[in-house]
Amino acid sequence: MVPKQIKKVIKIFSDFPTVGERTATRFALYLLGLDEKSVKEICDSLVSLKKEIKLCSFCFNPFTPLKDENICLICRDKKREQTLCVVERETDLWRMEETKKYQGLYFILGGEIDFLKENPLGKLRVEELKKRVEGLKPKEIILALNPTRDGILTMDFIAKILKPLACGEQSRTIKITRLGRGLPTGGEIEYADEETIEKALEGRR
Amino acid sequence: MVPKQIKKVIKIFSDFPTVGERTATRFALYLLGLDEKSVKEICDSLVSLKKEIKLCSFCFNPFTPLKDENICLICRDKKREQTLCVVERETDLWRMEETKKYQGLYFILGGEIDFLKENPLGKLRVEELKKRVEGLKPKEIILALNPTRDGILTMDFIAKILKPLACGEQSRTIKITRLGRGLPTGGEIEYADEETIEKALEGRR
Repeated sequence: MVPKQIKKVIKIFSDFPTVGERTATRFALYLLGLDEKSVKEICDSLVSLKKEIKLCSFCFNPFTPLKDENICLICRDKKREQTLCVVERETDLWRMEETKKYQGLYFILGGEIDFLKENPLGKLRVEELKKRVEGLKPKEIILALNPTRDGILTMDFIAKILKPLACGEQSRTIKITRLGRGLPTGGEIEYADEETIEKALEGRR
Repeated sequence: MVPKQIKKVIKIFSDFPTVGERTATRFALYLLGLDEKSVKEICDSLVSLKKEIKLCSFCFNPFTPLKDENICLICRDKKREQTLCVVERETDLWRMEETKKYQGLYFILGGEIDFLKENPLGKLRVEELKKRVEGLKPKEIILALNPTRDGILTMDFIAKILKPLACGEQSRTIKITRLGRGLPTGGEIEYADEETIEKALEGRR
């Protein structure tokens, strides 16, 4: 009943994150309702996304190279502090940059450890991170993953792996830190969970 | 911070049904993580979706024409009963066909009336439906929209519009019906709402 071209597009969208078959079907029918020109424009945008965007070899943030640079503007900025902030995703980096509160460099890990998978490290850029730390020798590494269960486990794991590099005899010591925890601004104590209150008490000043 | 190519793709996906900016961003980063060949394949599928699929001029179901037909296989099937089942969406038609319990013809209305909009009829194919009824002169029109508030209002509206056509003096009378309502198979009386129980009582046999 469903034409094979529609089935194929449903299959494609079902592979998108957070999308099930039902939503994928809605997407396919939505595209079918657009005119041919709009679909062509969408495709052009997807192709130029892949063609014109590179991942920075240092931090893995997507950027538009002017010529054939492999390093993004942030990583090339000599005025940046030599600290390395490890985040999970591109959007974490973007959010931190928006706030203009951090002046150092970044590294996008690409996810969290998933202990339920056969290969828990998945596509995490652990080797790339080690190489970057060895090359940069930052004065501080800030582990800025989300303080969720998986995020914390991942930070523990990363900290363990980076320790030998951070304390190597030849190199000066690298400090490994994590973002402070406590009540979020605007948060209400009444609704804060136990651990948040505990951390807020510990971090009081 | 976010490259313009990524921003553009986020904008594109934000226009998809049910997708907000956050999900659109995930989609863009997902595509960025695919290799160039996969993105090319996705684009090819989207283009052939638009190129190879036509909407049937009678029922508006998407189909793959073999040559340059404008009418789908269902509408061309002479063995089909001359009843016209009006559904909201393509997926409703597909579901009904799957069950093999209906042997007549269809018409996809394309939505429900949205009374909160400036143009409540939106893209509903009301004129096309009138034309189809006049041309086909079916012995029965089944209004098979979802029995939600908006669906019921839309069926009331459609019934009112079709009435003059159905009772015209020159033409034989066309019956206008709706799907039976009551408890769904497997449903539990304990959890049924008031109206469902009322309709189930009315429809008892």
